[in-house]
Amino acid sequence: MANGVNRVVLAFSGGLDTSVILKWLQQTYDCEVVTFTADLGQGEELEPARQKALLMGVKPEHIFIDDLRDEFVRDYVFPMMRANAVYEGQYLLGTSIARPLIAKRQIEIARQVGADTVSHGATGKGNDQVRFELGYYALNPDIKVIAPWREWDLTSRTRLIEFAEQHQIPIPRDKRGEAPFSTDANLLHTSSEGKVLEDPWEEVPDYVYSRTVNPEDAPDTPEYITIDFERGDPVAVNGEHLGPADLLAKLNDFGRTHGIGRLDLVENRFVGMKSRGMYETPGGTILHLAHRGIEQLTLDRGAAHIKDQLMPRYAELIYNGFWFSPEREMLQAAIDSSQRSVTGTVRLKLYKGAAHIVGRKADVKHNLYSADIVTFEDDQGAYDQRDAEGFIKLNALRLRLLGRRDR
Amino acid sequence: MANGVNRVVLAFSGGLDTSVILKWLQQTYDCEVVTFTADLGQGEELEPARQKALLMGVKPEHIFIDDLRDEFVRDYVFPMMRANAVYEGQYLLGTSIARPLIAKRQIEIARQVGADTVSHGATGKGNDQVRFELGYYALNPDIKVIAPWREWDLTSRTRLIEFAEQHQIPIPRDKRGEAPFSTDANLLHTSSEGKVLEDPWEEVPDYVYSRTVNPEDAPDTPEYITIDFERGDPVAVNGEHLGPADLLAKLNDFGRTHGIGRLDLVENRFVGMKSRGMYETPGGTILHLAHRGIEQLTLDRGAAHIKDQLMPRYAELIYNGFWFSPEREMLQAAIDSSQRSVTGTVRLKLYKGAAHIVGRKADVKHNLYSADIVTFEDDQGAYDQRDAEGFIKLNALRLRLLGRRDR
Amino acid sequence: MANGVNRVVLAFSGGLDTSVILKWLQQTYDCEVVTFTADLGQGEELEPARQKALLMGVKPEHIFIDDLRDEFVRDYVFPMMRANAVYEGQYLLGTSIARPLIAKRQIEIARQVGADTVSHGATGKGNDQVRFELGYYALNPDIKVIAPWREWDLTSRTRLIEFAEQHQIPIPRDKRGEAPFSTDANLLHTSSEGKVLEDPWEEVPDYVYSRTVNPEDAPDTPEYITIDFERGDPVAVNGEHLGPADLLAKLNDFGRTHGIGRLDLVENRFVGMKSRGMYETPGGTILHLAHRGIEQLTLDRGAAHIKDQLMPRYAELIYNGFWFSPEREMLQAAIDSSQRSVTGTVRLKLYKGAAHIVGRKADVKHNLYSADIVTFEDDQGAYDQRDAEGFIKLNALRLRLLGRRDR
Amino acid sequence: MANGVNRVVLAFSGGLDTSVILKWLQQTYDCEVVTFTADLGQGEELEPARQKALLMGVKPEHIFIDDLRDEFVRDYVFPMMRANAVYEGQYLLGTSIARPLIAKRQIEIARQVGADTVSHGATGKGNDQVRFELGYYALNPDIKVIAPWREWDLTSRTRLIEFAEQHQIPIPRDKRGEAPFSTDANLLHTSSEGKVLEDPWEEVPDYVYSRTVNPEDAPDTPEYITIDFERGDPVAVNGEHLGPADLLAKLNDFGRTHGIGRLDLVENRFVGMKSRGMYETPGGTILHLAHRGIEQLTLDRGAAHIKDQLMPRYAELIYNGFWFSPEREMLQAAIDSSQRSVTGTVRLKLYKGAAHIVGRKADVKHNLYSADIVTFEDDQGAYDQRDAEGFIKLNALRLRLLGRRDR
Repeated sequence: MANGVNRVVLAFSGGLDTSVILKWLQQTYDCEVVTFTADLGQGEELEPARQKALLMGVKPEHIFIDDLRDEFVRDYVFPMMRANAVYEGQYLLGTSIARPLIAKRQIEIARQVGADTVSHGATGKGNDQVRFELGYYALNPDIKVIAPWREWDLTSRTRLIEFAEQHQIPIPRDKRGEAPFSTDANLLHTSSEGKVLEDPWEEVPDYVYSRTVNPEDAPDTPEYITIDFERGDPVAVNGEHLGPADLLAKLNDFGRTHGIGRLDLVENRFVGMKSRGMYETPGGTILHLAHRGIEQLTLDRGAAHIKDQLMPRYAELIYNGFWFSPEREMLQAAIDSSQRSVTGTVRLKLYKGAAHIVGRKADVKHNLYSADIVTFEDDQGAYDQRDAEGFIKLNALRLRLLGRRDR
Repeated sequence: MANGVNRVVLAFSGGLDTSVILKWLQQTYDCEVVTFTADLGQGEELEPARQKALLMGVKPEHIFIDDLRDEFVRDYVFPMMRANAVYEGQYLLGTSIARPLIAKRQIEIARQVGADTVSHGATGKGNDQVRFELGYYALNPDIKVIAPWREWDLTSRTRLIEFAEQHQIPIPRDKRGEAPFSTDANLLHTSSEGKVLEDPWEEVPDYVYSRTVNPEDAPDTPEYITIDFERGDPVAVNGEHLGPADLLAKLNDFGRTHGIGRLDLVENRFVGMKSRGMYETPGGTILHLAHRGIEQLTLDRGAAHIKDQLMPRYAELIYNGFWFSPEREMLQAAIDSSQRSVTGTVRLKLYKGAAHIVGRKADVKHNLYSADIVTFEDDQGAYDQRDAEGFIKLNALRLRLLGRRDR
Repeated sequence: MANGVNRVVLAFSGGLDTSVILKWLQQTYDCEVVTFTADLGQGEELEPARQKALLMGVKPEHIFIDDLRDEFVRDYVFPMMRANAVYEGQYLLGTSIARPLIAKRQIEIARQVGADTVSHGATGKGNDQVRFELGYYALNPDIKVIAPWREWDLTSRTRLIEFAEQHQIPIPRDKRGEAPFSTDANLLHTSSEGKVLEDPWEEVPDYVYSRTVNPEDAPDTPEYITIDFERGDPVAVNGEHLGPADLLAKLNDFGRTHGIGRLDLVENRFVGMKSRGMYETPGGTILHLAHRGIEQLTLDRGAAHIKDQLMPRYAELIYNGFWFSPEREMLQAAIDSSQRSVTGTVRLKLYKGAAHIVGRKADVKHNLYSADIVTFEDDQGAYDQRDAEGFIKLNALRLRLLGRRDR
Repeated sequence: MANGVNRVVLAFSGGLDTSVILKWLQQTYDCEVVTFTADLGQGEELEPARQKALLMGVKPEHIFIDDLRDEFVRDYVFPMMRANAVYEGQYLLGTSIARPLIAKRQIEIARQVGADTVSHGATGKGNDQVRFELGYYALNPDIKVIAPWREWDLTSRTRLIEFAEQHQIPIPRDKRGEAPFSTDANLLHTSSEGKVLEDPWEEVPDYVYSRTVNPEDAPDTPEYITIDFERGDPVAVNGEHLGPADLLAKLNDFGRTHGIGRLDLVENRFVGMKSRGMYETPGGTILHLAHRGIEQLTLDRGAAHIKDQLMPRYAELIYNGFWFSPEREMLQAAIDSSQRSVTGTVRLKLYKGAAHIVGRKADVKHNLYSADIVTFEDDQGAYDQRDAEGFIKLNALRLRLLGRRDR
């Protein structure tokens, strides 16, 4: 596959690793490199990436820097939130959900600039290589893929630094030594893994967290917020209507302040090993909870239970990189068809590291809860308690037949 | 079914409602009533129940008061915890899991005393009637069941009080007026519903909680605890080995202190309506989390994911009252077969209303996590990064074929 | 519920049972009866139903006779076939799928004529009462339902005949005595149960079958047919384009001739008991098989496997009467989203009681099968055999880590 | 991995391909080859394999020829049949289920003779390489694996023949030219694929079938047989008790005679492509059907439906090679726990290419079917038809609430 590489679209963060990759690609493949830098809300300036790319000889018209924050939240984060997706009971899939969008843009740019190849900076042991490449191949089956970390011999940090020095690639001071952990970030979350996090018995040091205050340093007074939903998606916070990215950013602010959304996890990677990571998903944690809250009031039991049964498989598909697959789309179709009436308001209490649902309401066109029907006292026939006997008797029938036989 | 009732085993708490039922059964069916009062850790004195029963003419040998705490936790709570069972994403099934055991003992006692009928105090609108009666019928298909709340005309609190007064049934002062909510309790949890809780937009008033302090009143300093697991079940807290009930009680103490395990939920009842309830599951919340923590280290991905996929159905079965069903037993067999190596220690941080996993360890015979394999640097062949290419290529093949076709 | 019945829409076949019901409703409820007779392809003349209704005093404008064959096949049978739905491994749901449509029309007619009540002739032990009534309630939550078989005292055939005689209801000669079995029929299938079929060890007598010849009497020479599919639905047989009902009728002819689609089944009813029935689904059996055949060529593995995993639940929903439920609609949305490219032709061999797929083809816009890729010999890089090593190694990794631990 | 190979246990059929592999291994790796030939009922003489191995220099004590037929059927085929396993709706997994046993014996022999490596003759495009190797790695994580078809350059039939000629490997006359298709066989089935089968529109030529007569040539008179089951496994045919392998062989005879169990399939391989194959599973087809028949009478609905829902995933695991995985074992535990009472007799009619259940019976300790309960006429209270109203009303409640809201 190495042969005949002509033009490569590289997912380029502007950091040391992808700068080294840029140079290495130019050198090894004698090819033109096109850089693509996405603003997914990772909270870094992107212009330096442009400068670096220019410095390394990338043509101005081959430098792509896109603000994808709204697309990311609207078309990836929100659909996933509709599913209440959680991987292995805890992980809100913050890294997993960003990869398909990056892959999609790389393929689009490749088409635009006539590139035959794409490349990324993910290592050979992680999930991200899979997520990127499954995305690439699904969207362009004939694309060539270069994954430098699986190919080159810069397999230690030392050799990487040497290569950078040899090629006048600027090395940020904090990257000179061994980084104490590696990170990924976007508007939904920050993840960290490696080095100081590798012993799963050791508590994650506080300095690893960057998105949230330590719950112990959070305000001593709880804060209450409301989130409005329409058809399964959040549209307003505290009554203020916001676009997708702004809304998530707003929730991130609340989450940060109250130390919400920290997760210390040992997870099972698709490539077959267990790894330990730390995640911060401040706004996403609040949103996930709030979505359950509004579904409680507006979603029918049959729909809710099917959703719960499909969710682990759906989350696994996203984690494993199968966003662009027919089966993810099928499950999405099922999930989305359940969200028509998921409209209303959830009230949450934020306090010292946790969010709690404390109220939810929906208007009569969306609400399925009726205090009249559950009330203990007399009612007017919506529910006849005597019906319960027949209900139980017929549900019990097969168990009784079993019981008779097995005596 | 009312006809020919000879002797009835009543699930008798000693409270006002079941006292009225006792009398009503004696009167309406002209039958002998046998009382069964279980200590499931609800935290009430049980001797008063004996006195009340005697007063109402129950024969001493027909008064059964059993301490079922260890059986409850060992044979019901722990198996359920092995499954990481949660109903509708949040509810730890504290009421649901107690009903089968009560039903089982009632049927045993009925056999012992030659009773042909059992009775309970659950209302005609709730889930508990279903859980009790499915248990009864599964364990004795020919048993007769009397559910007074579905039969009698004491359908308002006022009429109930009148009946009690007419029959000299002592009425606790706080039951004279309308109770502001109704509760259920056992070692695993407390639940409350009705009246002041019926508007799902209104925050649950603090006085409804009885098992946990308000997180705002919890200590300002986090507390760290460890839980040891063997084959999926907890066996020690902070290194101290404890029997099932004592262990859960210990965790309840920790949870109470730190305000952990409060849940405000609108849930879907099996009988078809939505209801709003408040649950406190202090120790159970900690245990549930800790069990996930130890599985992270000791459970294979294939097993973990199948478990996650089966869990919602398993939880639904317990919620709906199908504990004694072949399908629950099948799922339990699957779950239990996965727990052989779920042995090790989890460390948790308890603080202001939430528990967090901060560490987990397991010895070499149980641990599946290896820092060597995930490390970013050179390694010695346990994992060859080049394998990832083939892995991705073959996972992508069908997506590429799809992509080619759909272009 | 009995009180205040004003006008009733009765699902009226014109047979003895529903004629007795008609009269009984008029008498018992002193209400106006509106009859609804559907042509679902059951193969009976419907005009006699009109005459009977008129005779029994139903107003001409209150007699509804609708040809629903195309709607039945297009909107009920075909969507179900897209799912490859089979209940308990064998039953093609021929009765279950007809009930929702009848219920829907009854509710529509009730709205039209201002009726407050609907009624049907299903017994109190079967599934059909559930299917009808769940349909009624889903489509009009305030409708009243009368199920005579659960109410009246005509609980033996003798008493029913007596009632008919008393009220001058004509009794077909073959209904005078005990029918040897009871049947239901529509364009998709015929079902029979009861009496001579009740011993599940006894072979179903040949005279019970009405839609298919005995395979032993079928032609000694196989017949080959083709079915064309578009987007998951059949559109032509042997190249001839046909509307939904005509197409199914055509396949029924082929099935009848070759004795295809007989099923002797002991099934689990939703109401809790096992029953033994005989089904004939000649065209449906061929169609079900053919749909699998075209999916083999045009459906991606991921989609196909999710479909197979969802199918049993989907079939159960239809069997239990939950056609008009959010969860059935969710599953349908998932299934339908997979059928976009299920277009092509299947060739089948029909012979002596069985159909066999012998060929399938699809054009390049729909086909996913490629002989080039599977071929054993050299190829040009679509598939690199060396990729398989990495694929296997990473799939094996977790098993190897397990193996190491467990040694 | 190639380096340091010392002794290799080769899965050796004695045919041309594995003979070439034997020689190639000796030559390429300069290692000692140990041959393992299993009798899985493929219907070939095994002694010639010994002679060939001796001729090619394998030491007598390094030639293993084992009759694994009973182990194969008892420990692999029967457990799978308990699950009613079918892949993609049609395939009875005849090849898939044999691979784990071969892998297991190879690993055992490797341990016994001190070999560090195993090898097989499966190609680089098929599923079997995966099934073999996942088995190897699961059972010995440190084993080395050589898959010659992925390594060597004998990638065309011509080169393979040349290599054989160069090394005096005897070439059967029918292998000189291009084989018209390739096959695999064991006691459960025969599979064929490739060449003449590659066009999925072309009917499989009759000469490809070797295990079954053409249905058109089968007897003109049906034959009836009975199969007795105990705890989910077949134990007797026509009343004659038989060991596992003999029983399956007996059913194969019946199936062969009546042309039963032919399948023409386009399936989705785990490695990502579609392939077209032909399978003959005469006895297995009868057994699969009969097992469903006895479950109809003896298995509870709850158990049956969970089984149906788990089955597609279980079948996929076997197809993909994950027999020795925790998740397959979990599902097996669930399945097996349901089979305690699956005991009784099924009667089948075999005729012209198809088997049909015509009767099933079980004694009172195993039977769950009761004609009394389903009967249409009066009964004595086992089932009260009025219970159905309550059952339906509560099942409908949520649909009514939905209906009210959505109006």
